[in-house]
Amino acid sequence: MFYSIVLAGGSGTRLWPLSRAGHPKFLYALTGTERSLLESTADRLASLSAPEQTYVVTGIAHAAAIARQLPHVPAQNLLVEPLPRDSCAAIGLAAAVIAQRDPSAVMGVFSADHLIGDQDRFVETIERAAAVARRGAHVVTVGVEPTRPEEGFGYLRLGETIETGVRSVEQFTEKPKREVAAEYLKSGQYLWNAGIFIVRAGTFLDELGAHKPELCAALRRIGAAWDTARRDEVLAREWPELEKISVDYAVMEPAAAAGRVVTVPAGFSWSDIGDFHSLGDSLPKDENGNLVLGDRTRTLLRDVKSSVVVSTAEGRVLAVVGVDGLVVAATEDAVLICPRDRAQEVRQIIEALRDSGLSAHT
Amino acid sequence: MFYSIVLAGGSGTRLWPLSRAGHPKFLYALTGTERSLLESTADRLASLSAPEQTYVVTGIAHAAAIARQLPHVPAQNLLVEPLPRDSCAAIGLAAAVIAQRDPSAVMGVFSADHLIGDQDRFVETIERAAAVARRGAHVVTVGVEPTRPEEGFGYLRLGETIETGVRSVEQFTEKPKREVAAEYLKSGQYLWNAGIFIVRAGTFLDELGAHKPELCAALRRIGAAWDTARRDEVLAREWPELEKISVDYAVMEPAAAAGRVVTVPAGFSWSDIGDFHSLGDSLPKDENGNLVLGDRTRTLLRDVKSSVVVSTAEGRVLAVVGVDGLVVAATEDAVLICPRDRAQEVRQIIEALRDSGLSAHT
Repeated sequence: MFYSIVLAGGSGTRLWPLSRAGHPKFLYALTGTERSLLESTADRLASLSAPEQTYVVTGIAHAAAIARQLPHVPAQNLLVEPLPRDSCAAIGLAAAVIAQRDPSAVMGVFSADHLIGDQDRFVETIERAAAVARRGAHVVTVGVEPTRPEEGFGYLRLGETIETGVRSVEQFTEKPKREVAAEYLKSGQYLWNAGIFIVRAGTFLDELGAHKPELCAALRRIGAAWDTARRDEVLAREWPELEKISVDYAVMEPAAAAGRVVTVPAGFSWSDIGDFHSLGDSLPKDENGNLVLGDRTRTLLRDVKSSVVVSTAEGRVLAVVGVDGLVVAATEDAVLICPRDRAQEVRQIIEALRDSGLSAHT
Repeated sequence: MFYSIVLAGGSGTRLWPLSRAGHPKFLYALTGTERSLLESTADRLASLSAPEQTYVVTGIAHAAAIARQLPHVPAQNLLVEPLPRDSCAAIGLAAAVIAQRDPSAVMGVFSADHLIGDQDRFVETIERAAAVARRGAHVVTVGVEPTRPEEGFGYLRLGETIETGVRSVEQFTEKPKREVAAEYLKSGQYLWNAGIFIVRAGTFLDELGAHKPELCAALRRIGAAWDTARRDEVLAREWPELEKISVDYAVMEPAAAAGRVVTVPAGFSWSDIGDFHSLGDSLPKDENGNLVLGDRTRTLLRDVKSSVVVSTAEGRVLAVVGVDGLVVAATEDAVLICPRDRAQEVRQIIEALRDSGLSAHT
């Protein structure tokens, strides 16, 4: 059985004011359709896993919204973390619970807020990766062919060909400098780490146990208690003490060093929607190169080009005239205006708002 | 006695979304202080007229807001027009009521939504004009030295010098084409018509009677009935039938042709705040050339230059990054973004909104 795990976390402040601590981007329709990123992710995974094999891991803040957006996912598959403990604990929780329920489970780990094109090739890629993962010897990542010297992503260094369409991963590299990223691109020996991987639940726990035995043991205790009357008691004792560490540091890097990570190159387009600029690149545009999202009936553009205009404020009009390459994002309680090539600066805006006692808007 | 008449009318759509039919610009603090344009106008006139000699003419829509902003103006001096009948009826109503109450009254007519600098020179100019007007032979306009070939204003063609600082006005010219405006500017023989004039109430009615006898007679009947029990009855009969005509066409142009208009050049700076661009020119700017109005504590600028940023939306944050020469105006129910040199295009925006069934926002 193939299990799909959707990680629905992260505050997504790079899309402020749309996404923020209380409203992560996966809840919004940033997909060019009426579906939210989360719904669109679940739609995509429906070809791979039945609802009973579809899981979501999230924090307490968004459990209710997720439960409503994904009514087909059984309540027992919505795994709610009591406190954020980084990605290794989130994925480890899913692995421990699923391994308890189905010891032979193969699971795919996906983000709730990625944009992915070409559904058929997506399914094809994941099925190929699942076939490799099912044998139990490897963690199988999905690598994306880089198209630019992106500094914001992790990279996979390719090793030998294991079989057709499957390469070993020699190393994980976190966010390189621009010059280094440019060399990676030129060499043809690196793929972007799409943050998608497929592995047996048991294999994942074994790898974790080899490098982080305490974290693994705690997660196994939680998994064993999850479907029992002792869940709350064990969670209350174990969860707050879990090490906060990313899955890349805790599992991927050491496993790659030990030769147990392989990659299947993605046969589909992929975007992690880092900011409004990349959102504008990732979705279909109008005839003037504009991406317009939200309440289009109340959004009026006049001689506007190559801009990203998002309005989610109920019953409010947004009129934009004569601009080129601008981001305009208007929500109930905030408006952001900035050139697309400075979309990264929302971080500083958020800091400045917090410094000004306006945290409620961040 | 010198009477100050404040005309508080006009829908002011050129400052949309801030000003609109329901919220004319004179109610807003577009003054660089906490005072609204109306309050600031009243403050300025306080040196010229006691509250008992201060009048406001407005429509039914804004009577309550005006009464609250100007608590010192006696209720009987707030003249409320039952229906809009253009500027000649508005001023004629004030002249007829005041002439009835004080036959020797000299009145100055001012707009509620002009920005005027240098209070001392303003008072000096108006007092000089009032001294000329008091003799009863002339309508005395205030003319502003033009500084650019402005197409949007009316112009006064200067004639002979009547006495020191007083010139006759040979002609009124409405909004000339740009080339013509440029010639006017070059010739030095034209002043902008600031829409301010001083005249005996009786002289105004006599001039009106000479050119528009029916309109004048109806206004005199209204004036005679105003302070009696017959006011409502006379108003109901007379007001809807009044000719809709501007004071320039009905009185100023024919009076100028008859040699009975003079002008006192303004010794003060003046702006009619046509649009956000000119508002940005008229008020004090910050060190980066930006004009920021409204809720400044929730307005965050980062590397913004020469822009006009207005936010009146309660409790909402406005963050603007990396733009130059932009207008951003955010209210409760609308946001406008456009380059300053295209600020005039709000008219087209309003039309487009009305065409889209969004009149409620205009």
